[in-house]
Amino acid sequence: MELDVVGVGNAIVDVLAAASDEFLAQHGLAKGSMTLIDEGRARELYGSMGPAREASGGSAANTMAGVASLGGRPAYIGRVCNDQLGEIFSHDMRASGIHFAVPPAAGGPSTARCLILVTPDAQRTMNTYLGACVDLCAEDVDDDLVRRGQVLYLEGYLWDKPKAKDAFIKAARIASAAGRRVALTLSDSFCVARHRESFLDLVARHVDILFANESEIKALYATDSFDEAVQHARRDTKLAALTRGARGSVLVAGSELVEVAAAPVSRVIDTTGAGDLYAAGVLFGLTHGDSLAAAGRRGSIAAAEVITHYGARPEQRLSELVSASLQA
Amino acid sequence: MELDVVGVGNAIVDVLAAASDEFLAQHGLAKGSMTLIDEGRARELYGSMGPAREASGGSAANTMAGVASLGGRPAYIGRVCNDQLGEIFSHDMRASGIHFAVPPAAGGPSTARCLILVTPDAQRTMNTYLGACVDLCAEDVDDDLVRRGQVLYLEGYLWDKPKAKDAFIKAARIASAAGRRVALTLSDSFCVARHRESFLDLVARHVDILFANESEIKALYATDSFDEAVQHARRDTKLAALTRGARGSVLVAGSELVEVAAAPVSRVIDTTGAGDLYAAGVLFGLTHGDSLAAAGRRGSIAAAEVITHYGARPEQRLSELVSASLQA
Repeated sequence: MELDVVGVGNAIVDVLAAASDEFLAQHGLAKGSMTLIDEGRARELYGSMGPAREASGGSAANTMAGVASLGGRPAYIGRVCNDQLGEIFSHDMRASGIHFAVPPAAGGPSTARCLILVTPDAQRTMNTYLGACVDLCAEDVDDDLVRRGQVLYLEGYLWDKPKAKDAFIKAARIASAAGRRVALTLSDSFCVARHRESFLDLVARHVDILFANESEIKALYATDSFDEAVQHARRDTKLAALTRGARGSVLVAGSELVEVAAAPVSRVIDTTGAGDLYAAGVLFGLTHGDSLAAAGRRGSIAAAEVITHYGARPEQRLSELVSASLQA
Repeated sequence: MELDVVGVGNAIVDVLAAASDEFLAQHGLAKGSMTLIDEGRARELYGSMGPAREASGGSAANTMAGVASLGGRPAYIGRVCNDQLGEIFSHDMRASGIHFAVPPAAGGPSTARCLILVTPDAQRTMNTYLGACVDLCAEDVDDDLVRRGQVLYLEGYLWDKPKAKDAFIKAARIASAAGRRVALTLSDSFCVARHRESFLDLVARHVDILFANESEIKALYATDSFDEAVQHARRDTKLAALTRGARGSVLVAGSELVEVAAAPVSRVIDTTGAGDLYAAGVLFGLTHGDSLAAAGRRGSIAAAEVITHYGARPEQRLSELVSASLQA
């Protein structure tokens, strides 16, 4: 069976807690960013956090959950450990209708977790202990699976670990050779800053479809001008889908450029997963014959759902939300 | 330092997923009930459930979290295993401001989990694998801790395991001997049915304050008449606080009887924890000089908060909600 999208990413369980701006300041956390932390720091930060709730996360994994909820056929490549959090992650993937067959590591570091502090402004600040993700390697990339996907979707976060980077490159080569499209999300402006030169090279050489938010695309092209960044992205990719929070998104493909409004939301609770779900909508649209504008709208609807509750995966069936929106 | 309430209960992590009425029927689940399941059944049911989210639960533990959120000083006695779910449970208790010092079991069954299926009518159907809870025993009851609490709060669910029952009885005797009040929640009508005779004996001999919902109190007194059940409870206890869902609650103490309306709610999402949080409000009120009516209202406000979101613990600071309600 042909798949719509094959995602490769860090397999993570999110640990979400409300926090004040003062808490972020006290712990030296930059609001809105993703910071990699070691196990000791994870223990220390967790010990000082408030009561939390847990939910499967991981950027590309969230996107695949969104594709499934929209009615698509996604698969996922990522690595958990054979522990309780790994069981939770694996369950949630399969129960969401995502093909996920990478066996859990039998030992070694525990399943990754991301300590997410949600401030009253609904912004999320993430602290990731990568744990078992560091064991993701080229051998985990199933050639046949990658060939079956219309689009290969890669998260920039993988770039932080050398072995995962190898897996990433291997997957991109397989997909390109099979005539499949390669999509990348830049993930985080700090992640872009850490790897700017190699990301620029990667985008120019391997990437057909680029996802980024405004600060990430500006960081990639080292410019303060969003419009200038859009022009760079237009030149480097076949399609760039660039999000601007409440101001919606811009999709640019060659001479075509469309602006899409954000979908209305009654109350924003937690922005975790907004970009991931936007990508899900766009990827589903692109693999199901949508126009650029329609794909962007689908992304906006998916993102709007996920920011109205805690957690980075949809709680409502997105295919029904899209249908309701088309009828409205 | 004196404590307001010391709770004793099954230490459980909840695994919450949306489910249809058809799912309940297919799996032979009685809506609204709590069923004890073994590890094999837990695996089977989990495997067929949809994607879930995890949050610390356990009836008495939820109540202690409510007491803390109202500004009180609670402690908790319950048993987890030294695993990831046990770490989550312990973190959430301490981060909520609850004194919790029972060491995790070093081996044996894993931390208890409750598979909770939430139907579109916001009803919750619970399936509990007790795991490490079966190791809770009389030695876990810290005499001094129990004596420090103004009220000892026990959950009926403990009655399902002989060793936990011993712990329960020991705690009740210590509290009574120290002149403290002993409170019991009946927990579940099926639980009452399993242990009716011994619960009747327990209520008459050891219990000062009884919490139950309408179906539980009717089951205890084997009557179809709520009013008749109220009269029995009036005779057997110093105070009975009896909940009736959207119809509010009745508190009866000797010749005094007050009816309290349910607090208004915009949209009910998940009723898990409603009874637990009602009990928290009443217990806080009773240990802080409230009248019966005021304690009942505090319970209604706490219950209303917890049913507007997934999970059985408050997401907003209950003390602030109560203040806001008094000013309105």
